[in-house]
Amino acid sequence: MIVILEKNITDKKMDEIISLLEENMFSVYKSSSEEEVILHVSGGKPGFNSKNLKHLEGIADVIKTDESFKLSGRKNKNENTLITLPGYEGVEIGGNGIAIIAGPCSVENEKQIFEIAELVAKCGARILRGGAFKPRSSPYSFQGLGADGLKLIRKAADTFKLAVVTEVMDTRHVDLIEEYTDIFQVGSRNMQNYPLLKELGKRKKPVLLKRGFAARIEEWLLSAEYILSGGNEGVILCERGIRTFENFTRNTFDLSAIPVIHQKSHLPIAADPSHATGLRQRVIPMARAAVAAGADAIMVEVHNNPQHALSDGPQALEPDQFCLLLSQLKRIAEVIDRKII
Amino acid sequence: MIVILEKNITDKKMDEIISLLEENMFSVYKSSSEEEVILHVSGGKPGFNSKNLKHLEGIADVIKTDESFKLSGRKNKNENTLITLPGYEGVEIGGNGIAIIAGPCSVENEKQIFEIAELVAKCGARILRGGAFKPRSSPYSFQGLGADGLKLIRKAADTFKLAVVTEVMDTRHVDLIEEYTDIFQVGSRNMQNYPLLKELGKRKKPVLLKRGFAARIEEWLLSAEYILSGGNEGVILCERGIRTFENFTRNTFDLSAIPVIHQKSHLPIAADPSHATGLRQRVIPMARAAVAAGADAIMVEVHNNPQHALSDGPQALEPDQFCLLLSQLKRIAEVIDRKII
Amino acid sequence: MIVILEKNITDKKMDEIISLLEENMFSVYKSSSEEEVILHVSGGKPGFNSKNLKHLEGIADVIKTDESFKLSGRKNKNENTLITLPGYEGVEIGGNGIAIIAGPCSVENEKQIFEIAELVAKCGARILRGGAFKPRSSPYSFQGLGADGLKLIRKAADTFKLAVVTEVMDTRHVDLIEEYTDIFQVGSRNMQNYPLLKELGKRKKPVLLKRGFAARIEEWLLSAEYILSGGNEGVILCERGIRTFENFTRNTFDLSAIPVIHQKSHLPIAADPSHATGLRQRVIPMARAAVAAGADAIMVEVHNNPQHALSDGPQALEPDQFCLLLSQLKRIAEVIDRKII
Amino acid sequence: MIVILEKNITDKKMDEIISLLEENMFSVYKSSSEEEVILHVSGGKPGFNSKNLKHLEGIADVIKTDESFKLSGRKNKNENTLITLPGYEGVEIGGNGIAIIAGPCSVENEKQIFEIAELVAKCGARILRGGAFKPRSSPYSFQGLGADGLKLIRKAADTFKLAVVTEVMDTRHVDLIEEYTDIFQVGSRNMQNYPLLKELGKRKKPVLLKRGFAARIEEWLLSAEYILSGGNEGVILCERGIRTFENFTRNTFDLSAIPVIHQKSHLPIAADPSHATGLRQRVIPMARAAVAAGADAIMVEVHNNPQHALSDGPQALEPDQFCLLLSQLKRIAEVIDRKII
Repeated sequence: MIVILEKNITDKKMDEIISLLEENMFSVYKSSSEEEVILHVSGGKPGFNSKNLKHLEGIADVIKTDESFKLSGRKNKNENTLITLPGYEGVEIGGNGIAIIAGPCSVENEKQIFEIAELVAKCGARILRGGAFKPRSSPYSFQGLGADGLKLIRKAADTFKLAVVTEVMDTRHVDLIEEYTDIFQVGSRNMQNYPLLKELGKRKKPVLLKRGFAARIEEWLLSAEYILSGGNEGVILCERGIRTFENFTRNTFDLSAIPVIHQKSHLPIAADPSHATGLRQRVIPMARAAVAAGADAIMVEVHNNPQHALSDGPQALEPDQFCLLLSQLKRIAEVIDRKII
Repeated sequence: MIVILEKNITDKKMDEIISLLEENMFSVYKSSSEEEVILHVSGGKPGFNSKNLKHLEGIADVIKTDESFKLSGRKNKNENTLITLPGYEGVEIGGNGIAIIAGPCSVENEKQIFEIAELVAKCGARILRGGAFKPRSSPYSFQGLGADGLKLIRKAADTFKLAVVTEVMDTRHVDLIEEYTDIFQVGSRNMQNYPLLKELGKRKKPVLLKRGFAARIEEWLLSAEYILSGGNEGVILCERGIRTFENFTRNTFDLSAIPVIHQKSHLPIAADPSHATGLRQRVIPMARAAVAAGADAIMVEVHNNPQHALSDGPQALEPDQFCLLLSQLKRIAEVIDRKII
Repeated sequence: MIVILEKNITDKKMDEIISLLEENMFSVYKSSSEEEVILHVSGGKPGFNSKNLKHLEGIADVIKTDESFKLSGRKNKNENTLITLPGYEGVEIGGNGIAIIAGPCSVENEKQIFEIAELVAKCGARILRGGAFKPRSSPYSFQGLGADGLKLIRKAADTFKLAVVTEVMDTRHVDLIEEYTDIFQVGSRNMQNYPLLKELGKRKKPVLLKRGFAARIEEWLLSAEYILSGGNEGVILCERGIRTFENFTRNTFDLSAIPVIHQKSHLPIAADPSHATGLRQRVIPMARAAVAAGADAIMVEVHNNPQHALSDGPQALEPDQFCLLLSQLKRIAEVIDRKII
Repeated sequence: MIVILEKNITDKKMDEIISLLEENMFSVYKSSSEEEVILHVSGGKPGFNSKNLKHLEGIADVIKTDESFKLSGRKNKNENTLITLPGYEGVEIGGNGIAIIAGPCSVENEKQIFEIAELVAKCGARILRGGAFKPRSSPYSFQGLGADGLKLIRKAADTFKLAVVTEVMDTRHVDLIEEYTDIFQVGSRNMQNYPLLKELGKRKKPVLLKRGFAARIEEWLLSAEYILSGGNEGVILCERGIRTFENFTRNTFDLSAIPVIHQKSHLPIAADPSHATGLRQRVIPMARAAVAAGADAIMVEVHNNPQHALSDGPQALEPDQFCLLLSQLKRIAEVIDRKII
């Protein structure tokens, strides 16, 4: 830690600061140049909140050199985390392959989820998404089928040999969802629901952790840290668009987060162009862009129902679009020596 | 609802859209001007998601005229909601008085919370704040004293005849916290934790609902709607700063939200300059500004420990500052014919 | 235009509003449903600012159906604008080809600009970028070589048969820069410098209009409108990153603006990953992503000086990286049936 | 300057970095602790861009301790800048008094500007605002009366002994506007129009520099630096709202910028609640809040025409509202021992 002193600090004040640091078990070494006087500081009492130092009289700034995300950071573990799913050979996230996760926004009924699962499998994807418990801005919107939805997606996935990812929002539902899913999904609005993250940290199944729509990358990695520090090493980050001032798009899809995550962390990163853009004609170019930018997985919504556009979300891809998109993604993946799985 | 058609729409496409609306139980009336053709539409099948209409071919836009927040909106209830606390005569939020809520960030130990409670009462405030369960960005930071903290704050508050507000983060803790608090606090990161909001909607005690740090006012009112629609009418909104690009401040304190809330909603609105600004020298002018802007309550952090700045947060007011601030707030309240309570 | 009336409006107030509209030469047709009463309004006095209507008592909202950007919008001109440069056969922006624009941030000296121009030409690009007048946040930073820089970049470009794009900031410099450049560049900070846009609207050479770092797409198109409405039809939009709360990246590169622009406008759109990301290791994946997302041109910084990293910006690509990147871009372009030029 | 080295740096790489710094005329002192190795560095070649160091291999971070804004910063000049206007005794900005600047958005005609000037003077304000050259997002909106507007506002102001502030957008208009105005206004969109700032730096009359709607405070002070470094010491900063994700307000009025500016800079700061909020019913509480937060001047729009709401902007105060507001502001100013002038 480096403590930069105010230029006009008195000797008395400087001595007080040094004493205070030493009382708190820090080793302090003073270094002066023509430009500034700094204290090069190490050690310190456990639990000492060095942020507060910054606001002491006589201190201009405090620079911490440690990254706050220890377990998720690349500094402590250089090799990429590779997530595999027991029972689904060849499905892995974080290796050379780029996994495709597809399905409806919500599980609506048996016919719907079976038709979509069949489509997903037919086009070559291996992981089925679909919400049973849905976080909705308004209490008056459809809140999902709950436990019934979990049973349906599991049955459909098993029929077509797909793995399942579905969302968990409530600490009280973790046990239930664990029975049915292969990957827990934590949604954008729950990225900083710490009791939920702690509970998932105690489980064995991997967690797809969506970025909060206004979360800085550092905070996202700190949320991953809650899961990792509980003992669960299987975290997949998922960029899904951030909130900005732009209003011609639903969110701003922050694809530059992909190379940043690859630099800072060993965790795999997925991208969800469906939620990011909200419109199927924008999902296609942005899915291509996500692969070109280096995403380790792509998550998209598809529907089974081209003739009834009203009942599907405007972002769900039509069956033909989905298969065509996968063929384009394959060719882009080859350009960067990767493959679609 | 108004459906605006594309300028170059064919008659065939227009007829299809009208049929589709009528199949979904809407009454449709077409109106043409030189500038545009619109459909004036009413009724519709329950649960129909009219957002999806917007993306149908031939439709340029869909304008809904209803506000999405029905119970929290002023359109359905014009008189202000007035929140009282049983057992605390004269303490009310949402009336002419402006309530002061003060206390430490976290409950740390008995001595600390008793000294601060005494100070809060002495300067004339009636509500004690203090966290027992703390949401922290990092799993390595202090997470609060938990149940022990609840007992301590209750005991200190009772000693000095103060009401208590403390934070709840986990649906599994609602019962426990209900035993000890007078007002539930929902923090910024949990503003869209819907299972938690639903659970609080079933309770009788009021809820101080902090604005998500990146929540639009409409979403904030929709979160209030979750609580109100469960049957709990006691919601106090609390502005605590939003996230922007500025980095010389911790948050951008959105005081213009105060007149907006007063126009759109009957719910009272509090302001928290401590979390908004993060530095005590900024808390004071911004607390004054919040009263001048019309806030119904002010929530500030105070500490008891002027000689040990290191263990307190940089935003906590010193005892003298707190009493002086209250005297300034009283005079500003008088300018707008209100009083501090 | 549609005027939505307040639900509780009195007949008297409604009549006043209708009279007021008719006095201002509008045709007014009233339409009532169970849900709302609206006025369907057309015509109106020239110059009437209908925004102000919105705030009249009794009016809930005013919906304008015209897009504000008439000349840049696709509604009025469906075919894509194709920009060619006299004397540079085969160089076009807005057609099937994707143009590469490359060069240094600033022109520094003759040796530098000649070496870079040679490199740019050798790798197959046709347009040379380089600043002579530089907008810098601080008055103490290097402000560019000015007129001398213009002469050097022109000479270097001519030697290697490249077209030139360089920035103009001051209305007083337009004549001078017009002598030396093939494309005017308007930087992000000048996107709403209206006197400058009007002056460029009178010229014949095309304008590369960078998006303001906090400009909505609608405002960007309105700025293009200033140039188009002056008679200059050659506008190339350029996405260069927007300002958000994220601080691990210099800007947030808004690639979803690319499909939005293609939907709303006939103007070509370029992407500048160098300014967007600020670091060469991020420029490469984001340039690939921009092509995959549909960009019509890519603008990147390159330097000639791999052994002296200190004097080059951290975002400039090394010579080898630039040639390798172009080969990847070619393959990605093929996936979407386009080619790099 | 402090250079923090990567934890795993080799000795060879460290020696290379030290050599490179010494070649560039820096004095380098190495300091090691258990936690990190740093270089404490001073001096350096003039014009050396130390930002680029940050991206050298082996360097984790570079911390500069100097503030970038030297002339506008409080570190170099502790006493507040006090701006006076020759010929207007008692009018000063930056002292104990809080100046009121009021007038229409645009000068429209002689009758309008005279009536408003009379009202402004009658309620006790001393400075008249009004635009002659207007920056408008759309080329199709009214662009102001130009030179004729300047003559009208000067004549009206002289009649009622008011000082004038009016906007300048184009370097070619500085001479003309200087003839008629007492204070130059630089609008939000031109905050980083550096040729314009440089030109104003050569003049004697003070400049009211509005904050760019997406400018960080540091950038705002750097723009002030352009004017100050040219020799013009009379800069008044003006907060007018920043762009955020919120859409129930026109801008987010960043009142916390006021205490930040007072801490970082000796320059006075004005606040413009009219442009910040866009609606007269919000202007009033926010003007009160700005005074309570410590603003040195308040700038508001007023109109003369209560019966013709359509031709005035929705943010202009009615004559009665303006006088009433001033009386409230006087009482709030007294609470903080200031006075309205």
